[in-house]
Amino acid sequence: MMTRRQASAGILASAALAAVPGDTLAQTMKPLALPPARGEGGVPLTQALRLRHSTREYSDRAPPMQVLSDLLWAAYGINRPSGDRTAPYWRHVMVIDLYVAMADGVWIYEPKSHALLPHSKDDLRAQTGLQDFVATAPLNLVYVAHGERMTDISPEERRLYASVDAAFIGQNVYLFCASEGLATVFRGAVDQAKLARALKLPDTQFVTFAQTVGYAGA
Amino acid sequence: MMTRRQASAGILASAALAAVPGDTLAQTMKPLALPPARGEGGVPLTQALRLRHSTREYSDRAPPMQVLSDLLWAAYGINRPSGDRTAPYWRHVMVIDLYVAMADGVWIYEPKSHALLPHSKDDLRAQTGLQDFVATAPLNLVYVAHGERMTDISPEERRLYASVDAAFIGQNVYLFCASEGLATVFRGAVDQAKLARALKLPDTQFVTFAQTVGYAGA
Repeated sequence: MMTRRQASAGILASAALAAVPGDTLAQTMKPLALPPARGEGGVPLTQALRLRHSTREYSDRAPPMQVLSDLLWAAYGINRPSGDRTAPYWRHVMVIDLYVAMADGVWIYEPKSHALLPHSKDDLRAQTGLQDFVATAPLNLVYVAHGERMTDISPEERRLYASVDAAFIGQNVYLFCASEGLATVFRGAVDQAKLARALKLPDTQFVTFAQTVGYAGA
Repeated sequence: MMTRRQASAGILASAALAAVPGDTLAQTMKPLALPPARGEGGVPLTQALRLRHSTREYSDRAPPMQVLSDLLWAAYGINRPSGDRTAPYWRHVMVIDLYVAMADGVWIYEPKSHALLPHSKDDLRAQTGLQDFVATAPLNLVYVAHGERMTDISPEERRLYASVDAAFIGQNVYLFCASEGLATVFRGAVDQAKLARALKLPDTQFVTFAQTVGYAGA
């Protein structure tokens, strides 16, 4: 018999397969290996908490690749040999994928190899939210949930627990941005159904929230 | 006309009144002024993220008052002159109160005066969750939501957005505990309705999640 944790590891191992690119053109794109995340540094925690805030005006300046790497690790990277993450998750089942919508397309963060898997060649930033700034900010994270991994609870509870897991990650992103001088805002103003269609998600998956990351500016 | 933020400030100003003690005996208890939170320090953010984990075995050792003060500020304290907090919240409306269930009773964290308001003289720790350790761990946070401040959305959405706000705070608690050598776990295994009755919450308020804090041990 598998333990819950082994079952979860099995799910993880097949994550790359499950993440069928929504865009066939994306299949010609290669996985993008991120530079190793810096395992040290940042401001003292108390200072990050003091600096935490939401920003709704962004410049179009993109963060360097090292910052993207560190951001994604801080958000939901693997932080110990068990494979567990920087954020907790519901009953040892990882239900959230981090989609990264940038000008060059949409990528899925793969924590095991610390890489970005190509999902779409389209610039879907404008569809990640109802506010104007989302279209030009360099990066929008989309928290996508695997409903099919939460079969023993109601659809409402799936949405609730997946949203809670997204919020843990979102707060990591807030504190990382506070530490690094980046700007961010966690957003509920998203047309989730429309974005799910744009991302060509399977019916069993759904969008919970999104979060813009970039640099403050007009 | 009031702005949304002014309306929110008004709600805040009346928070002490709204928080009618569930226990009349608690009215004989005085508000407990916390020592000022240390506005600096903690490990570098990356280290806190590396150390973050959940613990389900606790000693009965209670954290010193200074640590309690720092914990509550990190969780949901005021971090700038606007009155905004270390964690974001739904549409500028603060819907979450932090209840602190300890051996000496239940207190409500009041961020403006950075104090604990007495709510009940009863030790309700055992009722904050379904797992045995909650009864003897020194401190259980209970994230209570004001449904009456979210009138334009459905009950399901109230529960969802309040839960998301609780999770932002919960992740702050995780990182603070990682930084300070404390143990913690954010818990969904709570009989919310029973706990709401034990806390004598008004019908409009409800329990979302709870979180144990203490020191690892058997």
